[in-house]
Amino acid sequence: MNYPESIENLIENFKKLPGVGEKSAERYTFAAIEFDIDEIENFAQALKDVKTKVKKCSLCNHLTEHELCSICSDDTRDKKTICVVEDTKNVILFEKLSVFNGIYFVLDGLISPLDGIGPEDLNIDELIKRIKEENISEVILAIKPSIEGETTLLYIQKLLEGMDVVVTRIAHGIPLGADIEYIDSLTLTLALQDRKKIS
Amino acid sequence: MNYPESIENLIENFKKLPGVGEKSAERYTFAAIEFDIDEIENFAQALKDVKTKVKKCSLCNHLTEHELCSICSDDTRDKKTICVVEDTKNVILFEKLSVFNGIYFVLDGLISPLDGIGPEDLNIDELIKRIKEENISEVILAIKPSIEGETTLLYIQKLLEGMDVVVTRIAHGIPLGADIEYIDSLTLTLALQDRKKIS
Repeated sequence: MNYPESIENLIENFKKLPGVGEKSAERYTFAAIEFDIDEIENFAQALKDVKTKVKKCSLCNHLTEHELCSICSDDTRDKKTICVVEDTKNVILFEKLSVFNGIYFVLDGLISPLDGIGPEDLNIDELIKRIKEENISEVILAIKPSIEGETTLLYIQKLLEGMDVVVTRIAHGIPLGADIEYIDSLTLTLALQDRKKIS
Repeated sequence: MNYPESIENLIENFKKLPGVGEKSAERYTFAAIEFDIDEIENFAQALKDVKTKVKKCSLCNHLTEHELCSICSDDTRDKKTICVVEDTKNVILFEKLSVFNGIYFVLDGLISPLDGIGPEDLNIDELIKRIKEENISEVILAIKPSIEGETTLLYIQKLLEGMDVVVTRIAHGIPLGADIEYIDSLTLTLALQDRKKIS
């Protein structure tokens, strides 16, 4: 025997979330049944909103509800130093440290030939264009030290050769193969401070 | 700096679920952003549906989308043996074992004076009424062996005194203080088979 259809359906939806198995999905579903109707409406609306309201900043690809993200539209930021990251979660992560006052650029992925992801699938053209047009003085490559990360880093480094811009990478100190988002704040702060010039 | 408002809002909603902290809520939210629009609509609808479509079976209080739940409306079940459980999750759990062919009755809680929950807050009157009206021959009390569970069991046992009905309880074997839903199937099956007559 199974749950009533709508309960079964919500369990299946929760199971689509990363790391959520049958038991957790059941717990979440029974918790949701106990929510009052306003809370449920709010939750359902919040789900739709992230899909309909959130878009990418037209300058840096960071997620925002406006044309420009809160960082690109902030006049107090140093617009000459750009920190290149893999995804929008990394932007949030660096912002939480409050040690960087430049701007960001989100690649939306890394070059990964094995997964069929080439440079043309990322926002690298936009990045180069922005560096040229806005007279960027330093490009910080804050990309994780995996095979894909190194490939992407070398590719961008090559494209920037001969341009009048300092290219740095965040320091090793991040354990190889680890995801940037799971590193403790101190290691990440050090890694940002110890960035080293590579060309 | 914070996430865009709608992302922040969805994170807060996920954090209302049991055992979900900041990190998990962020993971779920970023996963939701990657869902396609149909998946999100479906998820949002599923949330609303459990609130609007799911109601309590008018006979046993088990969750259902109809007037009667799938068990109470099943003519092949033994309608003379009623298994009394704390909540609807326990019904699902017993049903998964496929060792019981009677019907259920969901109390929707246990007597707990410390939390201000008295017998009048549970569905005990309905239970007694059903036992009388439907000529139930055996009442199995499948309630966890905690202080609240024992109190509830003794209370129901007392109400049934003098009535022409066999009252049993599932066997000890479930570790004291543990939640029924986290017990392995074998222990629970044994506990159901070894139920012992108490009046």
